[in-house]
Amino acid sequence: MSIKPILYQNGHCLMIDQRLLPGKEEWRSYDDYRGIAEAIRTMVIRGAPAIGVAATFGAAFGARSLEVDDFGRFRDRMEAICAELAATRPTAVNLFWALEKVRRFILDHRDAPIPRLKEGLLELAIGMAEEDERINRALGRFGNALIPDRARILTHCNAGALATAGYGTALGVIRAAFEAGKKISVFADETRPWLQGARLTAWELQQDGIPVTLICDNMAGHLMARGEIDCVVVGADRIAANGDTANKIGTYTLAVLCRAHALPFYIAAPLSTVDASLSDGALIPIEERGREEVVRHGGVELAPAGIPVRNPVFDVTPAPLITAIITEAGVVRGDLGAGLKSLLEQRPPDAH
Amino acid sequence: MSIKPILYQNGHCLMIDQRLLPGKEEWRSYDDYRGIAEAIRTMVIRGAPAIGVAATFGAAFGARSLEVDDFGRFRDRMEAICAELAATRPTAVNLFWALEKVRRFILDHRDAPIPRLKEGLLELAIGMAEEDERINRALGRFGNALIPDRARILTHCNAGALATAGYGTALGVIRAAFEAGKKISVFADETRPWLQGARLTAWELQQDGIPVTLICDNMAGHLMARGEIDCVVVGADRIAANGDTANKIGTYTLAVLCRAHALPFYIAAPLSTVDASLSDGALIPIEERGREEVVRHGGVELAPAGIPVRNPVFDVTPAPLITAIITEAGVVRGDLGAGLKSLLEQRPPDAH
Repeated sequence: MSIKPILYQNGHCLMIDQRLLPGKEEWRSYDDYRGIAEAIRTMVIRGAPAIGVAATFGAAFGARSLEVDDFGRFRDRMEAICAELAATRPTAVNLFWALEKVRRFILDHRDAPIPRLKEGLLELAIGMAEEDERINRALGRFGNALIPDRARILTHCNAGALATAGYGTALGVIRAAFEAGKKISVFADETRPWLQGARLTAWELQQDGIPVTLICDNMAGHLMARGEIDCVVVGADRIAANGDTANKIGTYTLAVLCRAHALPFYIAAPLSTVDASLSDGALIPIEERGREEVVRHGGVELAPAGIPVRNPVFDVTPAPLITAIITEAGVVRGDLGAGLKSLLEQRPPDAH
Repeated sequence: MSIKPILYQNGHCLMIDQRLLPGKEEWRSYDDYRGIAEAIRTMVIRGAPAIGVAATFGAAFGARSLEVDDFGRFRDRMEAICAELAATRPTAVNLFWALEKVRRFILDHRDAPIPRLKEGLLELAIGMAEEDERINRALGRFGNALIPDRARILTHCNAGALATAGYGTALGVIRAAFEAGKKISVFADETRPWLQGARLTAWELQQDGIPVTLICDNMAGHLMARGEIDCVVVGADRIAANGDTANKIGTYTLAVLCRAHALPFYIAAPLSTVDASLSDGALIPIEERGREEVVRHGGVELAPAGIPVRNPVFDVTPAPLITAIITEAGVVRGDLGAGLKSLLEQRPPDAH
């Protein structure tokens, strides 16, 4: 049973503080939207699907706190709350997708009494968390079909239970293959600078008893050249209409390496990660975070004082380097843009 | 004036402790071969040319301590000392090349009195250190011709003054371009796990006023894709007869990325790094170091306890991915094996 990083209990959101893992398992409790916005911004919670769910709870808690009784004022105040939540992280589209669901729910229920709207937004958040885990299990089953027995799978960053409401996307595929009895093993890139791989993926897989070996990001090419890696499976933060995929910095390099070694490179992501409004990956905004993440760890300085630093935290992998995108509605190959479009059009209306 | 990491003073070798840079500039003093072997093994000193020089001082200090007066016993004891020095690190060939010079010196002077042999070995070490810096300056001049004005150069690990007896190989090329007035700038890969780039290259270039920006190893691909890198220059730990080159882990990935982005990928190394006895890179032994380097930094744990770790510290870049090898005798392009062979054959006899 994989961990859930975000839980709803008694009017509060509990989140495991991912900045402190694996050294400390500390849960934080939130009951207001500003706290949740800060939790997303400072990466108490991270991972594209997880921050979508967290933002929806943020919106529900924001709604709960509003002391207004006419719809127009409620809607305007909710617009401001959603804008504040949206300003926390720029790249992962699930955040904006989730807030769009909030806005649409409000507009669709303009005739409901305000207390019913507040209740409905909380139900939306709880339902989104449950749905996210179901989606990941569905995605895992589709992905499992692509994983051979005894596969040695490389993953990057953490697209695991901790990055979602549970089970994970890339790690959902890995969990599904493991649960199917395949004797797989995993290489986890440590994923500088935030070490999501070393701190989160290694910890999650270790807890579930899935064989995992930690490597530094710069070792993947060497292991591929020596025939020690069979495929790469990673998550996604935003997928453009043509299939170009933004994911954690270093993902693009793995895709180039896979191409050079004729290895499959898989993206595992829910359809909510597709941003059909962007024609290609060049339009995806890439977050650059502060220098501290690169030059300091656990209070230890890693570089001389005053050194200029670049810290782009995502990169874009062009569609032609992606073997397949694994979604909850099936696997897309070949013309990724056409495949994604077709899956999006088949979604039931309530999923839109 | 770039730093020299190893100095001979009054019968002692002084080495700046590269494990502590940039936080502390602490010099250690050695006057026996076992201390020097330990300094190489534990990476007080590192970098292929620097450990060659250090090992020669080790041999000279070992010789100095021998209380024997016949050549046979002197030679046998020196064989054991050289074997101990050779067992410190497996990949960089300069170590074995330097110890081979020691052995040849001894055999060439079998008729000399033992005190003269001891003196001669010390002169050999001092001469090798001086020669190494001259070589790097020559190599820098050849390399400078390949660097366009305003080039944005990526380097990996530290192939700088700290990796040599002074001036550096890859950073020698960069220094030469900077001294020639070119407005270059440098991206330094931090180079996990030992952070030679963050701790040593960034520090060295900062001290010399050469513009340098620190990035994580997994960011190079993203910057290349955005057109922010013009070429890569790195050092080498061992070059096989056909030009295949072992260098710090991650180098091979940079070469693959350069090919994918049509960027030049340069190796800068003295001819002493060529191991003509190995036909190709598959024969180069790749050192794997302990897990501690990956899972701990400055006393801080970076991963869950008990996680298996791989830590290959070098990789091999096949010759076809190398645009040119820059040596002290000229630049080799095209058929690297033939070019290296020709340069090696032209070397003056005392350099063999």
